[in-house]
Amino acid sequence: MTRIAIPEDSLFGSANLPYGVFSPPGGTPRVGVRAADSVVDLSLVLGDEVFAAPSLNPFMAQGHARWVEVREQLLDLVSEDIPDAAVHPVDAVTLHMPFEVADYVDFYASEHHASNLGRLFRPGAEPLMPNWKHLPVGYHGRAGTVVPSGTDIVRPTGQRKGDDAPTFGESRRLDIEAEVGFVVGTGSPLGTPVTTEDFSERVFGVVLVNDWSARDIQAWEYVPLGPFLGKSFATSISHWVVPLLALEAARVATPPQDPEPLPYLQEKNPWGLDLALEISWNGQVVSRPPYREMYWSPAQMLAHMTVNGASSRTGDLFASGTISGPAKDQRGAFIELTWGGKEPIEVNSEPRTFLEDGDEVSITATAPGASGTRIGFGEVRGRILPARHRLR
Amino acid sequence: MTRIAIPEDSLFGSANLPYGVFSPPGGTPRVGVRAADSVVDLSLVLGDEVFAAPSLNPFMAQGHARWVEVREQLLDLVSEDIPDAAVHPVDAVTLHMPFEVADYVDFYASEHHASNLGRLFRPGAEPLMPNWKHLPVGYHGRAGTVVPSGTDIVRPTGQRKGDDAPTFGESRRLDIEAEVGFVVGTGSPLGTPVTTEDFSERVFGVVLVNDWSARDIQAWEYVPLGPFLGKSFATSISHWVVPLLALEAARVATPPQDPEPLPYLQEKNPWGLDLALEISWNGQVVSRPPYREMYWSPAQMLAHMTVNGASSRTGDLFASGTISGPAKDQRGAFIELTWGGKEPIEVNSEPRTFLEDGDEVSITATAPGASGTRIGFGEVRGRILPARHRLR
Repeated sequence: MTRIAIPEDSLFGSANLPYGVFSPPGGTPRVGVRAADSVVDLSLVLGDEVFAAPSLNPFMAQGHARWVEVREQLLDLVSEDIPDAAVHPVDAVTLHMPFEVADYVDFYASEHHASNLGRLFRPGAEPLMPNWKHLPVGYHGRAGTVVPSGTDIVRPTGQRKGDDAPTFGESRRLDIEAEVGFVVGTGSPLGTPVTTEDFSERVFGVVLVNDWSARDIQAWEYVPLGPFLGKSFATSISHWVVPLLALEAARVATPPQDPEPLPYLQEKNPWGLDLALEISWNGQVVSRPPYREMYWSPAQMLAHMTVNGASSRTGDLFASGTISGPAKDQRGAFIELTWGGKEPIEVNSEPRTFLEDGDEVSITATAPGASGTRIGFGEVRGRILPARHRLR
Repeated sequence: MTRIAIPEDSLFGSANLPYGVFSPPGGTPRVGVRAADSVVDLSLVLGDEVFAAPSLNPFMAQGHARWVEVREQLLDLVSEDIPDAAVHPVDAVTLHMPFEVADYVDFYASEHHASNLGRLFRPGAEPLMPNWKHLPVGYHGRAGTVVPSGTDIVRPTGQRKGDDAPTFGESRRLDIEAEVGFVVGTGSPLGTPVTTEDFSERVFGVVLVNDWSARDIQAWEYVPLGPFLGKSFATSISHWVVPLLALEAARVATPPQDPEPLPYLQEKNPWGLDLALEISWNGQVVSRPPYREMYWSPAQMLAHMTVNGASSRTGDLFASGTISGPAKDQRGAFIELTWGGKEPIEVNSEPRTFLEDGDEVSITATAPGASGTRIGFGEVRGRILPARHRLR
């Protein structure tokens, strides 16, 4: 039997207990929970076959009451002796995609980000579109190219705006977008909007997201139907899903909303999350985006996404859009940090704008946890590989 | 034993043999093939468990060589005696979604449609955007709200553009989009574009699509990230997937493309499909969109969708976008047919613009089949139900 040593200052203590999918050495994928630097194999310690699945979807589909029940069991479990076979050092296991993504929606919920992008993409015009303060603008992304942290990112190839005609080749303006993603645990049927109050019943947990973006491909293709190939080559998420139940202490009021949103977007106590993100570029921290600055709340995003009667499903992932704070070193995309590439920043003493081959980006986050603790998110990390020149 | 009587002029003769998923009376969903007015239960007559699945995905994932092999077996089978238990009248079975949709992409491949929409949405400006003739413009839609023919469509609710502020309520400009959808049978890995030549190896078959559209919701939300809630409440597809192998005789040259597309979009023999669609509004034919007029070919759409390295998966659905021909009675959306509602058309002797509650729309199509036959697509049909007023 093993008892897991959990240091008081661990970001993965009993206030956190995020879920993931892992393979032990020589074993198949299954559900685990992280405690300090260990992973506990839930398929061995909890008598429910949902934890033997290679994704969190069956467990998430069991619903909110079950999530509460399992969390209570885990709070006991991690302070007790656990069979040796069920405990692995996190460095000894292989981590996988934690859930199957049903639909992936990306919002645009940071006023600072949307304003900066508006200034960069549409110079001279009003930075925010007339609809921006009335609804959380969003669009569907490619669910099939959501990949787990650590997946290498092949530089995308495509059409870039030219002087007369477009040119073809590898993206020269490859960027990141630091975001937070919300995972729907229990879906809702067609024709039945989810209210803002339903949010906590339906959303299972939270991941970090890096929505890799090829700005030159995006700039040429995105009118009038929105981003497509500039985004769809890869979206990375963290391995660990932090349960919403672990984020009670992280709730903060959202910034004031003016004009008042329509009734379906109102909340009795509008809340966001006090997540402190950190973006590292080749090991150097270059930005610290504050999630608490986001204009639209998570519950507003889900209510908006379904107000037209769209159904939702277990495994739906909706991300916040780039998180940018008011300060320059709080911007969540390099196009903002370097002002469209015109104001390079120093990374390891070199002036840098967009991503070069071999670059590695890692995004992490912490938040207040129960009883004055801090909890951590697993990092979302990716390295840029050179483009493959199969095509012209 | 039963031998299926196939009239010479049947649209579902041996030149067609589309696949679907059905339940016999009292039975569970399984894969069938349609011959004339009968459905043959493939889980009983072909010794492969993929046909006992409630979707075509396992069979599609077996790949092109297997699709050819099974089609040859079926060509023999439908001219022989079949065990009674394996044959059902099509009216006696329940038809389901034929496949699980992985990602859903909607293109915008008709020059006539894109030009008409440009004139309506952006009056006074160039109708086609500068990128339109260089790439097949497309975007991701909501896979989870793709529904089978016959599903009632609840009128969506949402934000509509107002004079000062948006108003909230049911869509008053509910529309259709008559489209053709292509179903990916075998996917392609991340980082590896699909060439135009790979198309026939990877695409399993073709369905009809009605991409229901709330024009007032769309007009307010779609800048800058594209359509979202104006489309995501429902997309209907036909029950029967016509194999690409049945459409050899329907191949036609695409219209001339000027400027010449970039090399990755070129085809040795660019081909579209000579599908003749028919749109019925409350039983009256109001339009006959010709698919052969589409500017961008199906192979170009798939090559474009993956040129950035995006992977594709079994069950990916990509639709053509609204099919409109040059003539007024060939337009595939009511916003075009009625010129934004300003030129009503007569439907059963009443002037009509957008959809009213209780309206029913059915889209069908035929195409040249082998040996001088014609083959048919299953209809895609839906009826409008009143909005549900749970929210303001």
